[in-house]
Amino acid sequence: MNPHQPGWASRWHSTSIRVRYQETDQMGVVYHANYLIWFECGRTEMFRELGFDYKRLEGLGLLLPVTSADLQFKSPARYDDLITVYARLTTFSALRVVYDYEIRRMAAGQEGQERTAGELLVSGSTSHVWLNGEWRPVRIDRAQPELFHAILAALKEEE
Amino acid sequence: MNPHQPGWASRWHSTSIRVRYQETDQMGVVYHANYLIWFECGRTEMFRELGFDYKRLEGLGLLLPVTSADLQFKSPARYDDLITVYARLTTFSALRVVYDYEIRRMAAGQEGQERTAGELLVSGSTSHVWLNGEWRPVRIDRAQPELFHAILAALKEEE
Amino acid sequence: MNPHQPGWASRWHSTSIRVRYQETDQMGVVYHANYLIWFECGRTEMFRELGFDYKRLEGLGLLLPVTSADLQFKSPARYDDLITVYARLTTFSALRVVYDYEIRRMAAGQEGQERTAGELLVSGSTSHVWLNGEWRPVRIDRAQPELFHAILAALKEEE
Amino acid sequence: MNPHQPGWASRWHSTSIRVRYQETDQMGVVYHANYLIWFECGRTEMFRELGFDYKRLEGLGLLLPVTSADLQFKSPARYDDLITVYARLTTFSALRVVYDYEIRRMAAGQEGQERTAGELLVSGSTSHVWLNGEWRPVRIDRAQPELFHAILAALKEEE
Repeated sequence: MNPHQPGWASRWHSTSIRVRYQETDQMGVVYHANYLIWFECGRTEMFRELGFDYKRLEGLGLLLPVTSADLQFKSPARYDDLITVYARLTTFSALRVVYDYEIRRMAAGQEGQERTAGELLVSGSTSHVWLNGEWRPVRIDRAQPELFHAILAALKEEE
Repeated sequence: MNPHQPGWASRWHSTSIRVRYQETDQMGVVYHANYLIWFECGRTEMFRELGFDYKRLEGLGLLLPVTSADLQFKSPARYDDLITVYARLTTFSALRVVYDYEIRRMAAGQEGQERTAGELLVSGSTSHVWLNGEWRPVRIDRAQPELFHAILAALKEEE
Repeated sequence: MNPHQPGWASRWHSTSIRVRYQETDQMGVVYHANYLIWFECGRTEMFRELGFDYKRLEGLGLLLPVTSADLQFKSPARYDDLITVYARLTTFSALRVVYDYEIRRMAAGQEGQERTAGELLVSGSTSHVWLNGEWRPVRIDRAQPELFHAILAALKEEE
Repeated sequence: MNPHQPGWASRWHSTSIRVRYQETDQMGVVYHANYLIWFECGRTEMFRELGFDYKRLEGLGLLLPVTSADLQFKSPARYDDLITVYARLTTFSALRVVYDYEIRRMAAGQEGQERTAGELLVSGSTSHVWLNGEWRPVRIDRAQPELFHAILAALKEEE
């Protein structure tokens, strides 16, 4: 499929996180802002699995800040839960990147089962724009054409 | 106006926050998840100004967790900025509460000017449901009728 | 050796953490308060490896809050670093628990090497007291004698 | 007195903070790492009251990272508490800076009373070294002699 077409979505990538005591609040559950932090863990690991790393991107003078985010909270994560962050791309263009996320809790024994086996806790998405070091929008197909085409190729290959 | 009608919105309430070093990230700006934390500061102070406090609510066995959130990031806050969180209610019912937010940065000398004088950094909203201590939905007009009508009266009075 | 004797120390236990973007600040390094959070990750995983978990402890009505902490910062961790938290007990009694920590960064290829091969970033310690659910000090050899002796046995066994 | 002499200490400066929901944990109290963040709020406001600001310092290419910290936790702060961070300098030299802190909770009606009227929650200290933008130690009496003498003069004046 084509990342420039509506309805396109990459494969889901996953990363696991153990809930920290610091992430809980006095309701006895994870404080809601932490899911945004975990979304970032998810997209970072997805990018690494594709063969890139976000640190290297910043080394090239590119930034990819969040321009909008939305979160739907279904059920709370709790202290010491082992949760899985699923991330996939739904837009990848020379100007913008959009990620979808699902945060799920696998019951003991469910490890290795397919994504939808885990209880859905939070879903959401984040939109990003490519900026240069001076915080000005850039087309990465012009600023870093090799990088751009390498990412497209990696997305195509995993289909 | 009537909080049960579409299009209703309460007055804006505001609270000021000095950006902490811990809230910055290596892009040199405020990390995006912090705006969700500041939204909460805004709704807490709004509620206090109406004559209530969220701590007392929890003392009554009520919880008001976030069920969804959205954020639009226009321009980043920076270390040591004095920013203002504006919050208002757009829904207040026996089942649900919805808040709107704007986070703005006042330039030196703009203090005390009207809301729209400040540069808009982030806008967003959060939706909440009333739950009891066992995390089950409650109608607060039945669980805490006096509290419910006192809040309605406070909203009406400030119009 | 005997955990009641001065100079006693358990074995080092380790857990690895990937540095999150949120944990950096505008100096381009990890914000210093995060090391206290990582210390907690280290002692939680050590406790799990001994065959216990802190969540179960709270389920028994026991709390183990921090009464003092100290940290020495040698060199900063950075975004996306893979760091290792080493934790060991230096006191384990019916009244108090003291942990020592080292946070180290392994260079690529150093994984699996011994602890001192990694660059030392931060060292420190935390002291804790056993409290009951009402935040009153308890002797756990009386409140939970089986648990107390099971932990002592696990510490002895790993020597 | 002379900041170069043992036993010297500046006046206490204070700043007030409302405890945020995000700062609590599932023990129902403030998570312990937050006190380090509040220490920073205290030293930042102290510095501002002396007529300087830390942001300007970084603008001059100076950094003042923490090299060690210690905290003693006496009693926990709780959600929505209005707490006061007291900070003072105990060392101020061309190479190093050391701060002392006390975090206290004033009961309603105690505002404006002297420091020791508030309940002591946490005390501690942090040590810092002057670094340049490349993270190398600098003597600020040579790198920024005017700034150094202006701070000394401000400390002398407030005695």
